[in-house]
Amino acid sequence: MALADTRFSNRRRALAAELAGQRIDALLVTNLLHVRYLTNFSGSNSALLLRKDAGADIATDGRYATQIRHEVPDIEPVITRSLITELLALLDGDDYWRVGVEADHLSYNEYQRLQKAVPERVTLVPLSGVVEKGRLVKDETELEVLTEVARIANDAFDELVAAGEIRAGRTEREVAADLEYRMRVKGSDGESFDTIVASGSNSSRPHHGVSDRCIGDGELVTLDFGAIIDGYNSDMTRTVAVGEPGEKAREIYNVVLESQLAGVAAATAGTALADVDAACRDVINKAGYGDYFVHSTGHGVGIDVHEGPAAARTGKGELAPGMTLTIEPGIYLPGEFGVRIEDTLIITDGAPQIITPTSKELRVL
Amino acid sequence: MALADTRFSNRRRALAAELAGQRIDALLVTNLLHVRYLTNFSGSNSALLLRKDAGADIATDGRYATQIRHEVPDIEPVITRSLITELLALLDGDDYWRVGVEADHLSYNEYQRLQKAVPERVTLVPLSGVVEKGRLVKDETELEVLTEVARIANDAFDELVAAGEIRAGRTEREVAADLEYRMRVKGSDGESFDTIVASGSNSSRPHHGVSDRCIGDGELVTLDFGAIIDGYNSDMTRTVAVGEPGEKAREIYNVVLESQLAGVAAATAGTALADVDAACRDVINKAGYGDYFVHSTGHGVGIDVHEGPAAARTGKGELAPGMTLTIEPGIYLPGEFGVRIEDTLIITDGAPQIITPTSKELRVL
Repeated sequence: MALADTRFSNRRRALAAELAGQRIDALLVTNLLHVRYLTNFSGSNSALLLRKDAGADIATDGRYATQIRHEVPDIEPVITRSLITELLALLDGDDYWRVGVEADHLSYNEYQRLQKAVPERVTLVPLSGVVEKGRLVKDETELEVLTEVARIANDAFDELVAAGEIRAGRTEREVAADLEYRMRVKGSDGESFDTIVASGSNSSRPHHGVSDRCIGDGELVTLDFGAIIDGYNSDMTRTVAVGEPGEKAREIYNVVLESQLAGVAAATAGTALADVDAACRDVINKAGYGDYFVHSTGHGVGIDVHEGPAAARTGKGELAPGMTLTIEPGIYLPGEFGVRIEDTLIITDGAPQIITPTSKELRVL
Repeated sequence: MALADTRFSNRRRALAAELAGQRIDALLVTNLLHVRYLTNFSGSNSALLLRKDAGADIATDGRYATQIRHEVPDIEPVITRSLITELLALLDGDDYWRVGVEADHLSYNEYQRLQKAVPERVTLVPLSGVVEKGRLVKDETELEVLTEVARIANDAFDELVAAGEIRAGRTEREVAADLEYRMRVKGSDGESFDTIVASGSNSSRPHHGVSDRCIGDGELVTLDFGAIIDGYNSDMTRTVAVGEPGEKAREIYNVVLESQLAGVAAATAGTALADVDAACRDVINKAGYGDYFVHSTGHGVGIDVHEGPAAARTGKGELAPGMTLTIEPGIYLPGEFGVRIEDTLIITDGAPQIITPTSKELRVL
């Protein structure tokens, strides 16, 4: 197991202190990513009840009876089909309880059912972002695994390029298959999101996935991809040229690269997130392509591939050491082509650490 | 595009009739799978407003301005950052509107925000399962793509076996990488769920994923995997022996196979879902392994890899032609080994059509 056990109890203690501060007696954790973040349990059906004194109970069903004892040796699990009912029944019957729920993740109907099922002495309190707050700054073990998973994707891309697998006549799908295979055998548990291999005019659609289109000579190809280890994601993008691209493509590429480097330079602890976005956007605006940079500059990467913080025009707050952030400006000329370049960074007190370090100079393959 | 356009307007008309019957004036569709099901739009940010007269408006953000016009030629999109607000503003200002929301998919907090944002003349009505009801029975185009995606996974598995890629000394991860690669190059857009390659004692955990464990001689290996095409999933499981398995493994295998065949035989239109579950469970109970069949018998497969109907002890309703259903009994002996065999079926008036047809006899590789 890559993650040391004390990490999980440390996280539960920090969250419990946060609950106590908000006058919440216990938190019912139903988001499965959060259950895993707080306990190491990776099954597909579970719930966690965390008390303000950091005492915890976890429930899952019979399919996971063996797995949960293996992954969570420090909490005796409740094996049941009625996860939430049985967890709430464990709350001391003589007390009144203010129980927080993850109201960003529980559906409206789930909340209504829960409201009907709770004992009278339990008051549900809809909360927002209480676990997410702790996730913003990663601990040392998390930074290690995030660095490792980013390295896997980065190295797989380097090998893909070196093996000549991105070339005219091959389909986007074939290139994606090769890239995913290389990430997989290096230790990835899957893809963080649908791999993007966008060639020619497809690259003008920022979220094109993969098609059976053959890459043509002289075209740009944008590859956006991520690996997963222990539930942690990576995210990076490179745009390459297959054969000599036109002058306009080179010009756009250089604008995006300059923008990306400006974003990386701005990404230091204490910088406002809106200013990081502005650092990238200003370069593209000045070059006259502002209307074609149709998305935000970046986001955090962790147990979600898109999580806080958000480097956007409307971004709030500032960067802190231990946060992760992508810097991924792009220019998309509808029907023609597009360029996006993306790194994932770890924010430090000094220059950010780029965990997707392969070259960003335009490669002509 | 594999799906003919009239399918989408047909689905919208059927849903609109359902809304009219429930005295709902319009439905706000926020589940992205449902937006795609009803319009063909596959972007990661959208909402659809469907009126009871089948009139429809769709909104997405600037990243998808090109893509949405390509995928949804029959609805002029609203390009905005405020999807829901702008959609609701399109409702005729002189009328009162009862607007249904997908309350199984909208979070409690999203619902509360929406409630605050709607104009006074709009009354939100939390609904449950209204789109899902239409999804239970697949139309002809859906059955075609489901057959195709199941064939891809089935054939990839056959090739994996024929190529000798499941063998002692290889890791579960390597086998998964090969299987996923083969599905990918055959046309899959990704994996329906995390591929399972569970060898030896790992196979006793029904939802073990993939590890770096080396397959040993004489071990059982359970492979559970699915491909994706046009947003439609496949799902199948086979358990193979690498080298001669023990007598107990053969005994368990035969019990599971007999159970699986009984489930397939029971899966005809008009049969109660609880009876399909019982058909599988009875065989395993009689063999004395009932305590080790720790999950349900099966589920529908479509735009979700797990969807209705549910073949479970508590399953309600009965099978109808055009439904899909997995039949996937298993026996798991903790710490020893496990066996699961799973097909996906299309329900007809006669014998079900097995769309994952590769042999279920025990293969000793």
